[in-house]
Amino acid sequence: MKKVGKVAAVMMTSMLVLSACNTTNLKLEKTANRTAQTNVSANHDNMANMGNMKHGKYVNENTILPTQKNINEKATPVKIERIGEHEVNVTMTSTVTDVQVAPDVLYKAWTYNGQAPGPVVIVNKGDTIHFTLENHDPTVMHSMDFHAVHTSPTKNFADVKTNDKGTFTYKASDVGVFMYHCGTAPVMMHIANGMVGTIIVKDHSHPYPNKVDKEYVVINNEWFDSGNAEDMKQGNPSHYTMSVRELANGKLGDTPFVAKVGDKVRLYFENVGMSQPVSFHVVGTVFDDVYLDGNPYNHLKGMQSVMIPASGGAVVEFTVVDEGTYSVLSHQFDQAMKGSLAKLIVTKDGKLPAQPAAAKH
Amino acid sequence: MKKVGKVAAVMMTSMLVLSACNTTNLKLEKTANRTAQTNVSANHDNMANMGNMKHGKYVNENTILPTQKNINEKATPVKIERIGEHEVNVTMTSTVTDVQVAPDVLYKAWTYNGQAPGPVVIVNKGDTIHFTLENHDPTVMHSMDFHAVHTSPTKNFADVKTNDKGTFTYKASDVGVFMYHCGTAPVMMHIANGMVGTIIVKDHSHPYPNKVDKEYVVINNEWFDSGNAEDMKQGNPSHYTMSVRELANGKLGDTPFVAKVGDKVRLYFENVGMSQPVSFHVVGTVFDDVYLDGNPYNHLKGMQSVMIPASGGAVVEFTVVDEGTYSVLSHQFDQAMKGSLAKLIVTKDGKLPAQPAAAKH
Amino acid sequence: MKKVGKVAAVMMTSMLVLSACNTTNLKLEKTANRTAQTNVSANHDNMANMGNMKHGKYVNENTILPTQKNINEKATPVKIERIGEHEVNVTMTSTVTDVQVAPDVLYKAWTYNGQAPGPVVIVNKGDTIHFTLENHDPTVMHSMDFHAVHTSPTKNFADVKTNDKGTFTYKASDVGVFMYHCGTAPVMMHIANGMVGTIIVKDHSHPYPNKVDKEYVVINNEWFDSGNAEDMKQGNPSHYTMSVRELANGKLGDTPFVAKVGDKVRLYFENVGMSQPVSFHVVGTVFDDVYLDGNPYNHLKGMQSVMIPASGGAVVEFTVVDEGTYSVLSHQFDQAMKGSLAKLIVTKDGKLPAQPAAAKH
Repeated sequence: MKKVGKVAAVMMTSMLVLSACNTTNLKLEKTANRTAQTNVSANHDNMANMGNMKHGKYVNENTILPTQKNINEKATPVKIERIGEHEVNVTMTSTVTDVQVAPDVLYKAWTYNGQAPGPVVIVNKGDTIHFTLENHDPTVMHSMDFHAVHTSPTKNFADVKTNDKGTFTYKASDVGVFMYHCGTAPVMMHIANGMVGTIIVKDHSHPYPNKVDKEYVVINNEWFDSGNAEDMKQGNPSHYTMSVRELANGKLGDTPFVAKVGDKVRLYFENVGMSQPVSFHVVGTVFDDVYLDGNPYNHLKGMQSVMIPASGGAVVEFTVVDEGTYSVLSHQFDQAMKGSLAKLIVTKDGKLPAQPAAAKH
Repeated sequence: MKKVGKVAAVMMTSMLVLSACNTTNLKLEKTANRTAQTNVSANHDNMANMGNMKHGKYVNENTILPTQKNINEKATPVKIERIGEHEVNVTMTSTVTDVQVAPDVLYKAWTYNGQAPGPVVIVNKGDTIHFTLENHDPTVMHSMDFHAVHTSPTKNFADVKTNDKGTFTYKASDVGVFMYHCGTAPVMMHIANGMVGTIIVKDHSHPYPNKVDKEYVVINNEWFDSGNAEDMKQGNPSHYTMSVRELANGKLGDTPFVAKVGDKVRLYFENVGMSQPVSFHVVGTVFDDVYLDGNPYNHLKGMQSVMIPASGGAVVEFTVVDEGTYSVLSHQFDQAMKGSLAKLIVTKDGKLPAQPAAAKH
Repeated sequence: MKKVGKVAAVMMTSMLVLSACNTTNLKLEKTANRTAQTNVSANHDNMANMGNMKHGKYVNENTILPTQKNINEKATPVKIERIGEHEVNVTMTSTVTDVQVAPDVLYKAWTYNGQAPGPVVIVNKGDTIHFTLENHDPTVMHSMDFHAVHTSPTKNFADVKTNDKGTFTYKASDVGVFMYHCGTAPVMMHIANGMVGTIIVKDHSHPYPNKVDKEYVVINNEWFDSGNAEDMKQGNPSHYTMSVRELANGKLGDTPFVAKVGDKVRLYFENVGMSQPVSFHVVGTVFDDVYLDGNPYNHLKGMQSVMIPASGGAVVEFTVVDEGTYSVLSHQFDQAMKGSLAKLIVTKDGKLPAQPAAAKH
């Protein structure tokens, strides 16, 4: 393809845009032996834990609080301790951590457990949750709003002071995939700065009807380069990330985003972005079954794309019939081009080849 | 929290943003003894009728028609007269009225009955509606497009000339929550200037299955500061309002937005905004039941948020388990921060305390 | 209406906006005897094949590749050949063609078969499709991603080189209305430049339950004036088109967009736009039945508007009870004003009058 003058500039722009498209990011709670994989393959970009790697410039440099400037707290796993048949303790931290939102692009983020999006929390339907937030932030109050619970926001999504902790108790009565986020004012800013994540509520007595071979949690998130509240109010994110975590036997695993030919795959999708709905789609397949917000009652079939509101979720199931790379993305391509895209690698044996097949959009 | 230099400016911005977030507006059709409540509590901001109060500057000053400049018609109730078991007369006016879209922000609006959004119209499924529009606007033609009816747009959503009136007849065959709006070209401008509202069609022979304790109508609307058509074409509203009206025993009441601990609450939600879908959510609860566009057939369960198209509606039901303030909002936080947010106060006895609990996002 | 000074300018703007609103465009695959109808009526604007007419300036002039500048390939029909009970050959071309996106507005587009959106492809559920793409573009590689099939994107949505052809085989297992588009990187640019269309998968053994009188395919598409990738990344289209094609006895016909009083009308709606969800609505009616993505399982009733994700579709059915003009549009009026609007003419006998009724918004 010839590139001349002004046209060349445009085409070059699109190529650059494309390369940005190839990289999405993920914060894993299992940090061990993740870093080594960072450069193995394009796919591994989705899986890399870059929470503690400092590469590039801060995009939100002008809005970083002076007192947070030198803080970069390490990623830690969430603590979930079952203390009864229907009772769990969940402990998380609120921290200031550098997050790599794109190659060479750092964001001084407000996070849960040094991860953005935060660690996936998994509980059972009917569980009473005793939730403790340890606020490690020396300057800003934080809190926790779980979309999965019924409670008084004023009492139990209450602010936790700096260097303090607070414990709150509520019940998870509904099965599904839910957002969590900091509920401290201005909420917009706490969400945009990274304090978001996913809580999955399982219903073991009424599991989803289909048997599946692979389960992953997929999370769409937004980033606003400047960190400036006025930019956030425009609802025009500068970056998106599409993060992926495996669920193996109901627990969070750490394999790459991979399946084998013939597998039925289930994704627990959650849109934790601050401002935008997404049009969720997987290239090369049709969703056999979709459960809006992960509730089996909200059942759709044969869907090409699912409209997910800001803070909404869905469980989607599909079959991969041949080897190749399947893009998992928002079909709003302005979003996909800004990073709302991950790549599922399908191989004969479900293992990642040394040199995976060339990526396809 | 320390605020220094540029950072201080940013943080100040967010605080200002937050305070804007605390105030949403409502035009009630029952204007009597509403004004007095305006300053009782933060919650009451949702309930205040400011249609005839003139505070602040006109944001659309540069586009106000000279002939409309000095008109500010008072809010009046809609006239609904039942003339047969399945037949009603509905009479409304189209007026020029000052609307307070935010504190100290006035908009010279085009309205129905001096209210924006206009008065809630409630009819029964199967009713034949004889609708009369009295156009009090001396300059601009107006009309009425009810989403609840089957009719010829050309004949029955026809323009009514200035200082004239027109009567149109059609049937409301479908149960649910529907938008109404002016259908005169350019429609975009008539909607953006305030000519929007909600019509609820009840089906008494097949009511919603659950018994509820409280019912409210909640309406999301957009405002475009400049009043300029080019800005509207960008679909980027500068203000939102989330209005609330009580429904008591099937009739419009005038209590504040309040419930008591343990109440099952039903909201008739309608998005009358000109351009944007919304992600409807209530903090501190999960929707037990959702009926898209208010039709019992379109049933979803256990939803955290509902995607509502521009002009779409939903009936949602949820339980409030403890005292506190529950934000009712679009979880697209750029919208919430611009005003798409109301506050439901939950108390032990369902009555508003003299000094309500501190507001929570 | 008086128009003075600055106000006049604003009002003039809205009038201009309105007139743009009256014209939507369509590329028909049946080009014969279409051109003659172009000026018959406002409605016919929806039906005109302007693919080979060159009127106006190229809006994307600055980004046209030098090697594509003088190419304007004629529209051709898609070749669909049934070679077995459950087996079809489908052959399409990728071309460079001038598309009239609005009156006096040309776009040097990348298209399928010289049409944008491309020709409607209709197959049966269970069909094995042998798809051949003949790439007539001398400069840019293209490909085909059918949302209706299960296959390896890497292998079967693969790039076809310039002046080359490629054949790919896959199965259409799911009934419904699906998007197709070019999957060559950067996908955003190929979609925005016109390489989009609709594939309908019929299930003759389980047809939609209702008998209908008229069937049309309606396609919403976006255009980005500048052709510049950075503008596309903002997800803010400058034009929309709402195209309409008749389906008569399951085959594509070429009558205008018309129905007769009392008709039950079925629309196969598909949103092939690059970036924006749409709020699909028909003025003057309520959708009796809606099937998301065209799958009968995904059934909604009594809907005023349907939220359609980017790349999503729906089958909607409604009744027209009286003569008049019924606008078919996105109720996000920023989109409607930019062209996401078509006009269904309803007459006593279902034939277009010599002088149709005046258009209504």
